[in-house]
Formats: sequence, C-alpha cells, structure tokens
Amino acid sequence: MTTSSDPELRCDPAEGLASFAELGPHRPTDPRPGTLEILAEDRETSARSCRLWTGHGPVETPCFMPVGTYGAVKGVLPDELRAVGSQVVLANAYHLSHRPGAERVGEVGGIHAFMHWPGPILTDSGGYQVFSLRSLQKIDDAGVDYRTHFDGSPARMTPRSVLEAEASIGPDICMILDHCPPGDGGGASDAARRAILREAMDRTTLWAQEAARLRREILRDDQLCFAIVQGGTDLELRREHLETLAALDFDGLALGGLSVGEPIPQMHATLEAIAPLMPRDKPRYVMGIGTPSDLLAAIRAGVDMFDCVIPSRHARNGQLISFLGRFNIRNGRFRRDDRPVDPSCGCPVCARFSRAYLRHLHVHNDPLYVRLATMHNLYFFHEWVAVQRRAIRQGNFGAVAAALARVLEDRTQPGKGSKSTS
Amino acid sequence: MTTSSDPELRCDPAEGLASFAELGPHRPTDPRPGTLEILAEDRETSARSCRLWTGHGPVETPCFMPVGTYGAVKGVLPDELRAVGSQVVLANAYHLSHRPGAERVGEVGGIHAFMHWPGPILTDSGGYQVFSLRSLQKIDDAGVDYRTHFDGSPARMTPRSVLEAEASIGPDICMILDHCPPGDGGGASDAARRAILREAMDRTTLWAQEAARLRREILRDDQLCFAIVQGGTDLELRREHLETLAALDFDGLALGGLSVGEPIPQMHATLEAIAPLMPRDKPRYVMGIGTPSDLLAAIRAGVDMFDCVIPSRHARNGQLISFLGRFNIRNGRFRRDDRPVDPSCGCPVCARFSRAYLRHLHVHNDPLYVRLATMHNLYFFHEWVAVQRRAIRQGNFGAVAAALARVLEDRTQPGKGSKSTS
Repeated sequence: MTTSSDPELRCDPAEGLASFAELGPHRPTDPRPGTLEILAEDRETSARSCRLWTGHGPVETPCFMPVGTYGAVKGVLPDELRAVGSQVVLANAYHLSHRPGAERVGEVGGIHAFMHWPGPILTDSGGYQVFSLRSLQKIDDAGVDYRTHFDGSPARMTPRSVLEAEASIGPDICMILDHCPPGDGGGASDAARRAILREAMDRTTLWAQEAARLRREILRDDQLCFAIVQGGTDLELRREHLETLAALDFDGLALGGLSVGEPIPQMHATLEAIAPLMPRDKPRYVMGIGTPSDLLAAIRAGVDMFDCVIPSRHARNGQLISFLGRFNIRNGRFRRDDRPVDPSCGCPVCARFSRAYLRHLHVHNDPLYVRLATMHNLYFFHEWVAVQRRAIRQGNFGAVAAALARVLEDRTQPGKGSKSTS
Repeated sequence: MTTSSDPELRCDPAEGLASFAELGPHRPTDPRPGTLEILAEDRETSARSCRLWTGHGPVETPCFMPVGTYGAVKGVLPDELRAVGSQVVLANAYHLSHRPGAERVGEVGGIHAFMHWPGPILTDSGGYQVFSLRSLQKIDDAGVDYRTHFDGSPARMTPRSVLEAEASIGPDICMILDHCPPGDGGGASDAARRAILREAMDRTTLWAQEAARLRREILRDDQLCFAIVQGGTDLELRREHLETLAALDFDGLALGGLSVGEPIPQMHATLEAIAPLMPRDKPRYVMGIGTPSDLLAAIRAGVDMFDCVIPSRHARNGQLISFLGRFNIRNGRFRRDDRPVDPSCGCPVCARFSRAYLRHLHVHNDPLYVRLATMHNLYFFHEWVAVQRRAIRQGNFGAVAAALARVLEDRTQPGKGSKSTS
C-alpha cells in the first residue's frame, strides 16, 4: 500500500496556522467574534472550508478538536498541542464546575490563563456527562438533578447555571444545556424510541429558548454560544429540531446525540442528510465524533468542527493510530522494533522515538508514554483533517477523499465511534 | 527573607552549557574521554570546579545528575532536561538488563539513541538495588544471587555481568559492582557493625580488582569506569578502602554507602574527611545524595558529582522544592493561588503555570503534573549547584556558600537524605 506516502495525502497539520507564540485574544482589527468566512465549497459534495473568528483568534475548518476535559489534554502541554496542529481545545464546564470550581477558574484569570492555552477554547455543558454517567436523578423542564461522579453529592444543572459557569470559566465557544437521550432507545419499540427522542428534543428546545434569552445577559460579548440539535437518527425529527433551533439567537449549531451506540451507517446517513441543511452562514459542529472514517463522512457532509476522545484515550490504552492502521504498543513484537510508529509520519514523536522505546515507557507506566502517544495520535487526526481542508481549498476534495477512503479500506479500522470524557 | 532574590544566589542552570541540539558524541578535537580539567579550586575549602570529558561531551562540575532508572526521567523529555540544566542522566544497568534487556538496548542503537539523550549517561550497576530491595539470596566473593523485583525470577550479578550489560547498554560512565551494606548495621554492636563494613569493603575490593582486569576487554575505549569506596562512616575503613581502590585502573572514584540511614552529621563529617583525600586528578562522585544541605556539604568537601531521586520522587509525591522551602501542592490553600511555585524562579514551569493549576493537575492525576513538578524541582537542584559552580570559578565560594547556608536555615528542610530508584 503506497497511498499513505502520496504527498496529496500528507501534510504538516500546523502549517498555515499561527504559531503558539502568536496566539492571543481578539485584536481590534480582527473580524468580530462569530464571523464565519466561507473560503471554499466543494462542487460535488457538501464539503466546505471556512474561517471562524473567535475571542482568541481564527479557527480554520474543517477542524478536529482535542478533548481536555479538566482544562488539560492529559500529558500534553499547550505549545505541543499547537505543534501537532490543535486549533481549539475542548473542556467541560461540568467537570471544571466541580473541580476546581467555575468561580475558582475565574479567580485565577479564566481558563486560558489557567491552562496557558492562548487560543480558542470550547466548553461542553456537561449535560451529556450527566445523562451518560448514570448519575441522573430527576429531569424536568427547568433543569436536571444529578449526583456528581466525584463524591455523589447532589447538584442541579439548568440552562442558566451552565451559562453562568461558562461565564466564569471564560471559553470562546459555549455549548448550552441539552437533553441527550441514550442512542439505543433502551431496547424500546420504534414508537417508544421515537417518543423518547421527541421528549428529549422538546426539552432541549425549551432549554435552548431559555439559553437564547439569557446568553446576552450572562456571557461576555465575545463568547460565542452554540445550540445542540437532537433527534437521534430520525431524519424527520432532526429536520424539525434543526429548523426550530436555527431560528434562535445562536452563533452556531451542533448535532448532538450521534455516536452514542447507533449503527455507524445510520450515523453517517444522518450526517449526510442533515449537515447540509444546517445554516450555511454559521459554523456546523458534530459532537463526539469520531474515527477517521467518521471524519471523512462528516467533512463530506459539510461539517466544520468535531471533537473526540479517540486519539487521546486510545493513546493512553496503548493504541497508536496512523496511516498504517492501529496497533497496540504492548505487543511483544515491538520489543526490538527500532522504527518509529509510522516511518512516513512527520510528527515530533516519530522523528525521535522508536516503537521499542514507546513500548518500554508504556511497560514502565512512565508519564512520558501518555504524552508521546497522545501527541502522535493527535498529529495523525489533525493531519487527516488538514489534508482534507487543503484539498477543499485547492478544489480537489473529491480525489483526495476517494484516496483517503482507499487508505481506510487497506488498514485496520481504528475502533468504533466512542465518546465520553478524556 | 530576601536572600533568595540575591543575584549571586540565582542563575539559569543551563547557562554556559551547550544547547540540546549541540550535544553529541565525542569529537576528534575534544580532549580524550576521561580527561579532567581542574578549572578552579577554592582557597579556603576543598571545593573545586572541573570539566570532565566523556564519550558524549563535557560535564561542568560540580554537577547534579537526575535519575532516569529505566532510561527516562519520568515524564520529562531529554530536551527539557537540558533546558533545566541537566548534564548527565543516571540510568541503572540492573533495571535495563531486565526491562527491556541490555542486549535489546544495544540492538536498537544503545541507550543514547533509545532515550534520545545525546549527552553523557552514567549507569549504576544495580548492586545497590539488589542489596536494598531485600531481594538478595546469596552473596559470595564471585558475585551475588538475587531474585528480580520484576517477577521474582532468580538471577546472578557478577563484576563481569555488570560490565557486559554496560557494554551493551552503552553509557559513558560505568559504575562497577560493589557490596553496599545497610547503613544502620542492623542494630548490631560497634564491633559487629565494623565487621559488616569490613566484609563488604573487602568483597568490594575483590570485585573492583576483577572489574579493573576486565574493563579494557569488555567496555569500549570511550566508556569511563568508576569504582566505589565503601566503609560507612568509619573514617579509618574509608581511608584504607580509598587507598586500595585509588591504586587500580579506574577513571574516577565514588563514595557509596552514604545516605543509607546514618545520622546526617556523621554523613557530612565523612564527606568532609574523605572527599579531599580522593585523587585530585580524577572525578569524585558521591552516590545517592542529596538534599540541598547535603549538596552544599559535598561541594565544600571537593565532590564533583552527585545523583539523587529527591527532586523527581518528591515532585511525584506532590512536594515542590525551591528557595522558599518545600510545600505539598495538595494543600487546600493553593486552590486559589495564582502565583507560580516560586515567584523568583526562572524555570519554564514557574514562567507559565500557577500553584492552583499544578494542584488541579495533581488532583486529577494528569501526567502533566509529574512532568511540570519534576522540571521545577530539577531546575532548583541544578540552579542550587550551578550557583556554587559559578562561585568557585569566580573565586567567591566562601561567601556564596555562607549565604546559601543562611537560606537553608530560613526555610523548611526538604526532607532527609534518601536514595533509591526513581
């Protein structure tokens, strides 16, 4: 298989991005935060490439966002994130609200100063975690009661409390509270499943209306606010919900409730049908995806942003992902293997360290392992997206996407979609 | 307390050292490995500053060596070690012989390529670990039988097996096998304790004689070989053993069996009496020390090199050490503390991160914590020694040492001497 060394399929994912030292808050001469410049649209697919302006500079899309739940991508420093091509770091308002506390992050200067990442930051509300961690106690139209997964203490989350936490924490993009139902419908009948989806959707709408009313009062002017479309893989519900939320005062829309257990072809079909219907003039974000294959499908459907724990969590579990496929570094065959993870990879880890050394660090539980493995995997995910971004801008997305699809056919699939905290 | 901001007591520990990119193997124009240039000797004390040439460039002494038992200083990359002032990394031939195996390190290009540290590396034999890990099975004049602490499997270590492992691993400085008895004499009477010390000393001599015979056959020409003086805190035995070993074919001598449980004043008295008697034309190394106070005493006594797990192990346990003393980052008072660990510290961690963020990373068990804490502590230890090195070379060691002693009186002592694997 030679496609992976094709220069059209490889690039430095940090190329063309401002350096870490150049990152910083919005400048008076920058376009207003929230401005979306559409730089290119593919003729044959819905793929597009944009520049989204935030309170901490631009984001070149399509863009994969690494997950730094607690205000840190485990083991990796901000300047290293930038070196492997990260543009936006995703943190979680729920986790930060409990540890160290949203007010405390505010007191020490906000999340950018706290974690020393001067570029764009997005926070999820934590609603997904409250629903998925089975800590849910009671849900009503005003909010949700839950027990924290830290110490089981009771807490409540409302559209207002989420925005207030995000105002203290200070991210550039704030996700509002949504109701994300389980992906498998809990073994229910079709009708029952649809009722569950509809209930979650309607409650999400109520919460979105509340958030749209409150955001101008609670958030800073330069904090963007995104709403989350629900509806599972039911295209009718998705279209209806999209239309409802698109009419409200938000800077961008996300698709939630995907990659939560549904069959992958259904998920891709939903992306293909729904993403192109999302407002053209606002950023489109799909939450919690995905595999290289998911990213290819999402970009083709016109999605601008995605986040996923796969590169970082898989790295910690020993899984190294590259154009060659995925392998587990603990495998004994790497003991004497002095080659890098992927000999054709341009990442700082492959430039310096062997599979044998990474295996050695993993066996000894050295924190260096997590760091190096995460950097490698993130570089690959960023490169995978950057190659497509370049292709869209250069007008040859169709050919590049087809070649990337052939790479995927030739390699081991890097696992099914998964989403959670990192 | 204002002394810690006195410019005479602070410096960048990497200043004056070759950059990471400049490190590499011995060049034909460099002095022969083993050459010791004595650059300055203090008039009032035995303190001295030298330049020791190795197979991977010079070492400016006095020099503190971080411990990277398995071929990695946990969480910290080689270029970061250099940035905080590391010159020599200490690894352990025993650990590397079992994981991943000395031959395997050789197969992937040797320890320098394996860990990507192109500067000087010293390996301890692991004799200390075999004796201290209570894995000892049987000791005789030819070697020692033990059970590995990895899986309890039986193994044997001899003067030859240690040198052979070091030949495969490929460090620049090879410690030979010695017999290090327990520091407290196991509650024995004075006479019994002396008998234990004498037995260990005599066996160490036999092993040293064997190593001196074998080293030219087994090691590369550019690998230096150091012997280890025993004798506990018994000055008569120490002097006798020093004289015996100084007559053999070694490039340097070390004092072993210190900081193994004996009272600190006795340890300092031993250093004061014995170090000045060590051959002037060879490097002097004290193994397994120490605290800032130990380092001050050792440098005053004319020691050139030391290693200790304190900065790295204490860091992992939450202990951050600086001119301000030592504190535990888990303390609740740091939750809202947006100051760096030491506001007057020049290290890359204090330049970027707050106590609140380090505490947050520690609470969440993020590998970043180990990395940042270790870098800070190592910077402090290297700075502590670099300030004394500069003073010796500038001819004002007496005044600087007195001022550093006052700093120590004013601050919390960073723990008693301890030594082990990192």
